[in-house]
Amino acid sequence: MASSPRQFKLGAFLMQTGHHIAAWRHPGAQADAGVNFRHYVALAQKAEAAKFDAIFLADSVGVRNSDLASLSRTARSDHFEPLTLLAAIAALTERIGLIATVSTSFNEPFNVARKFASLDQISGGRSGWNLVTSSGTGEAQNFNRDTHFEHALRYERAAEFHDVVTGLWDSWEDDSFVRDKESGRYFDEHKLHVLGHKGKHFSVRGPLNVARSPQGRPVVVQAGASEAGRDLAARTAEVIFVAHQTFDEAKSFYADIKERLPRHGRHPDDVKIMPGIFPVVGRTQAEAEEKFEQLQALVHPVVGISLLSNVIGGFDLSGLPVDGPLPVLPETNGPKSRQRLLLDLARRENLSIRELYLRIAGARGHQQVVGTPASIADQLQQWFEEGGADGFNIMAPWFPGGLDDFIALVLPELRRRGLFRTEYEGRTLRDHLGLRRPVHPARAAHVEREAQPAAA
Amino acid sequence: MASSPRQFKLGAFLMQTGHHIAAWRHPGAQADAGVNFRHYVALAQKAEAAKFDAIFLADSVGVRNSDLASLSRTARSDHFEPLTLLAAIAALTERIGLIATVSTSFNEPFNVARKFASLDQISGGRSGWNLVTSSGTGEAQNFNRDTHFEHALRYERAAEFHDVVTGLWDSWEDDSFVRDKESGRYFDEHKLHVLGHKGKHFSVRGPLNVARSPQGRPVVVQAGASEAGRDLAARTAEVIFVAHQTFDEAKSFYADIKERLPRHGRHPDDVKIMPGIFPVVGRTQAEAEEKFEQLQALVHPVVGISLLSNVIGGFDLSGLPVDGPLPVLPETNGPKSRQRLLLDLARRENLSIRELYLRIAGARGHQQVVGTPASIADQLQQWFEEGGADGFNIMAPWFPGGLDDFIALVLPELRRRGLFRTEYEGRTLRDHLGLRRPVHPARAAHVEREAQPAAA
Repeated sequence: MASSPRQFKLGAFLMQTGHHIAAWRHPGAQADAGVNFRHYVALAQKAEAAKFDAIFLADSVGVRNSDLASLSRTARSDHFEPLTLLAAIAALTERIGLIATVSTSFNEPFNVARKFASLDQISGGRSGWNLVTSSGTGEAQNFNRDTHFEHALRYERAAEFHDVVTGLWDSWEDDSFVRDKESGRYFDEHKLHVLGHKGKHFSVRGPLNVARSPQGRPVVVQAGASEAGRDLAARTAEVIFVAHQTFDEAKSFYADIKERLPRHGRHPDDVKIMPGIFPVVGRTQAEAEEKFEQLQALVHPVVGISLLSNVIGGFDLSGLPVDGPLPVLPETNGPKSRQRLLLDLARRENLSIRELYLRIAGARGHQQVVGTPASIADQLQQWFEEGGADGFNIMAPWFPGGLDDFIALVLPELRRRGLFRTEYEGRTLRDHLGLRRPVHPARAAHVEREAQPAAA
Repeated sequence: MASSPRQFKLGAFLMQTGHHIAAWRHPGAQADAGVNFRHYVALAQKAEAAKFDAIFLADSVGVRNSDLASLSRTARSDHFEPLTLLAAIAALTERIGLIATVSTSFNEPFNVARKFASLDQISGGRSGWNLVTSSGTGEAQNFNRDTHFEHALRYERAAEFHDVVTGLWDSWEDDSFVRDKESGRYFDEHKLHVLGHKGKHFSVRGPLNVARSPQGRPVVVQAGASEAGRDLAARTAEVIFVAHQTFDEAKSFYADIKERLPRHGRHPDDVKIMPGIFPVVGRTQAEAEEKFEQLQALVHPVVGISLLSNVIGGFDLSGLPVDGPLPVLPETNGPKSRQRLLLDLARRENLSIRELYLRIAGARGHQQVVGTPASIADQLQQWFEEGGADGFNIMAPWFPGGLDDFIALVLPELRRRGLFRTEYEGRTLRDHLGLRRPVHPARAAHVEREAQPAAA
């Protein structure tokens, strides 16, 4: 196959024992992965050696409020807080990007702006913030609320949260801190910018007490696929991590987002769209399927039914025949995109409850590919070259084996096709992703003023 | 001198370029220390090689709201967020304790409990939380408020915050996570404890989504010297970091705290009291004084006056004669203990404004010792042996030189006297400090039940 002039971006989505719900029971899995620091360091260093753009961490600010019978059979209740973990990993890596999920629902923008700015300094410009809204009742109840915020309000709060955080990241210009010992001038007071934000949800004076990021600003990542999510992403996201089941969905989402960008004064290249991919890799198709079945066989029905029930919005399915169809369900206040994806899938393929939960036991609504290096590379290449993706977030079924397989078997095939780098081109996450370093607003205005004739 | 059967505890209080307000202008200082990760790593590794119990980081969630003329001449506006920094340092150290200051005023207890639990897992049991309340207006204005909380309310909130955090740390028992791949049982549901806290300031369900700490619970540190601060500390603190100007003050505070402990069912050894010490070390007294004068000469009057003004509660002193006395000032809502210490000092020694600001340019109200290894060791030994301290938090005037001097000159003298360890006795911060590992409440109750005859 001819080599592609463009290359795609790859994230390594790390999650405890792996993305398959039964991953922790795999004989090769590190069962205590959630709180095993050496486990995460080994994975991050592997991903870096393989030249991934970034590692990516999801988050939840609470233990799921699901039935104990299921909860106690999954490895989802004990895990590191992502920013603490990424800061520690930053110290033991040099080039790979570090993206952490932090919710806008139960945090203060000053704290979030500061932590990512700090991580960016520690890592030499490798931090990224996956901005999400929280929708779990179990999360809300850890933060003085009985229920989570209603969908629209959640996004309104998220949009303002974003603006405060990025505003705080611009508190200082790149050369604010002169630190001249002789004159005693530590910073140039003309290059300090007090935000003075007063909005509906937040009132934040600033300035931030961290110097401007090596990247200008940490990279902003988003994952929303609902209308409100797309709108916010088109205005503010630089990477979009998204779940698709089919190429058509991916293509339609991709086109929609890229079309929205100019309305916000943005260029299509300003946003990288990276669908999640759950790859099960075998040297033959049979070997791949065998690997997958090994994991599927480890899913306890109690866990499967509970998982499905949560994803579709909390409806109790435990009384229904597991080999019967999913009932018709009303719209909820939960994570819309995920729910809709699942219901569409069940309808399209006429799946029973058991078949449906086995579908999401691994990829959780993302694209699941069980195949050989060539067939997986074919699919990624198609999505990339035919307008479905700028890159992919790789969700290994279990760690370390699933990631090892992708690196050892699929990456060489992608490189043979010229689709993925053999060496990092730069040092920061923006360098890897091919994202512009933002010019500070005060400098941008300055540049503009200089380009204009003086007013009369 | 005879060797002491007890040995004292030492913290290395790291702060950007150093504790002296003009430290950053010292020819040997790292002027960009606040955002220089390698600088902090080198200091932490030095402190670990010297067998310090812990490194300690202060914090402020905002840039001081002081006049720009002064602010722009100090190195206090750009620094790492402490938890992010300590997590990164954890990855590059093995034994030293890691204590970070996090305010109860502008955080949520779930987030704080989780981050320290996470740091404790990453570091193998080395984390400590310095629980403070925030009193700066500049901080409040970054968190949706015009002014900070009133003193009593701040402490009431802090007390409840503490109880929620420690309650969340007990969400899981030590052996909750069985992770048995064969049976599919990941945790024992009888060893999960939902907090269900509903109080005046917080409503937090739990459980925490991090396994129980290697230390049982991270160590709780406090710094309040006001009546409300002492009361909270006697009930909840395991280390108290405190500022004293005289031995009599230290002795009186020490006795007061140790006397309060039994009222809360605690033993005197359950709390380690560690005053801050600002040491300027010379091989001769003249050399020590010369080193100190070198720093004092770098204090700009604009900076000195502004520093003093802030510490005494925000009164503007800029119009007053710098060589005249401090006027009589009313009580404020600021940090009471610090303000009172300063006013007492000025009165006791009849100091001018300039003399007073030069006194706090270094130690900021803490005990300043300018002397030889022997004279400094004499003082520390007296405080330790005569009921003033269980250890000390060492506040080097500038980094790295001030810490290097203490390690190279004072530590050998302390070791000759048998006052400080030559090797770590254990692996966790609790081990170093000689603090008991807390028994989980469910186990404590169990032990009690077993000791009782069965009810009829």
